[in-house]
Amino acid sequence: MILGLESSGQTASCALAEQTDALVPKSVAEVTLNVGLKHSETLLPMVESVLRLCGLSSSDIGAIAVSVGPGSFTGVRIGCATAKGLAWSAGAKVIPVSSLEAVAYSSYSSNTRPGVTLSAEIDARNGFIYNALFRSGRHVTELRRLTPDRVISRVELAQTAESFATGSDVTAWGVILAAIGKPFGDAEPVYLRQSQAERLQNAK
Amino acid sequence: MILGLESSGQTASCALAEQTDALVPKSVAEVTLNVGLKHSETLLPMVESVLRLCGLSSSDIGAIAVSVGPGSFTGVRIGCATAKGLAWSAGAKVIPVSSLEAVAYSSYSSNTRPGVTLSAEIDARNGFIYNALFRSGRHVTELRRLTPDRVISRVELAQTAESFATGSDVTAWGVILAAIGKPFGDAEPVYLRQSQAERLQNAK
Repeated sequence: MILGLESSGQTASCALAEQTDALVPKSVAEVTLNVGLKHSETLLPMVESVLRLCGLSSSDIGAIAVSVGPGSFTGVRIGCATAKGLAWSAGAKVIPVSSLEAVAYSSYSSNTRPGVTLSAEIDARNGFIYNALFRSGRHVTELRRLTPDRVISRVELAQTAESFATGSDVTAWGVILAAIGKPFGDAEPVYLRQSQAERLQNAK
Repeated sequence: MILGLESSGQTASCALAEQTDALVPKSVAEVTLNVGLKHSETLLPMVESVLRLCGLSSSDIGAIAVSVGPGSFTGVRIGCATAKGLAWSAGAKVIPVSSLEAVAYSSYSSNTRPGVTLSAEIDARNGFIYNALFRSGRHVTELRRLTPDRVISRVELAQTAESFATGSDVTAWGVILAAIGKPFGDAEPVYLRQSQAERLQNAK
């Protein structure tokens, strides 16, 4: 089983998927919470609930895909710490995933046409966003990255003028999709230096 | 709180939403299970889990939106029975919702453009589907129904030739969206007489 963890934004979620012969793993269960509680108090109980509902235990988890940022500094730290703790106790491997890539996969639906530019956007405050652009393919596994993860002002992004569909919601299922074909690694937070963006703005 | 229950298909889900001043209630939590267990064994534990994770009890539920069909006969019966039992014990009202309308709302995303025809489709076997057509508006609350719920052959639907986006996934969140502005009622299964469709096919 693959466990997906997402706590880089307001909403926390965890998902379970089963690796099959297909390119995309089979979605088994998902829990999403938007209760205003701290993710530190909700993320692990969510994992426990989803395992119990499926009649599984932590030893059934082979890999943990986790959204490592950019995003809420505290949320990202909690996601990474939870992934590390679970991986250690369950003997599972970690697959770190860009939160923006998880946003892009989360916004992908069966009605997304090929060749569409998807703009993944996470609020970075003061008129800035964390952003990356992607291009859809014929299948969700053919999503192609057009830019690296970056901090950009909303104004500057709008000036690129290209027509695109935006996504800002992110789910643990999107984290699992983004982890397909990615290497194992460490659950280390990626902050993308928001402070630099703030410095730039203050310098204007 | 509004509880949404969806068990008319393969996947069972429940969602909690909070009524606010906005047209669309605020999503609080959602649990989705696709574990091949019988919904009769999973639906109520899912409700218990979601309430526990949110620090709520059944007495916090004011209304229960439930998907009453068409769909899996057994699944629809379990959804209706669970809604009735919970409503009775929690002192809550029931809002029965067409499963096809819930499919349409589930497929609605922030990137759905106005004026698009959405075809909600649930497999009814032997080349037939449960189907209804809807037209998107500028906002999810402006979804407009174009046809009643019906049983139709895939061939006949394809011959209508109009271009449309299809949806067949359904979530408890879609059930809650479909319940907005709908009257309270009884949780009675709607079967749409699939057997008639089969008789028609056999008569050919």
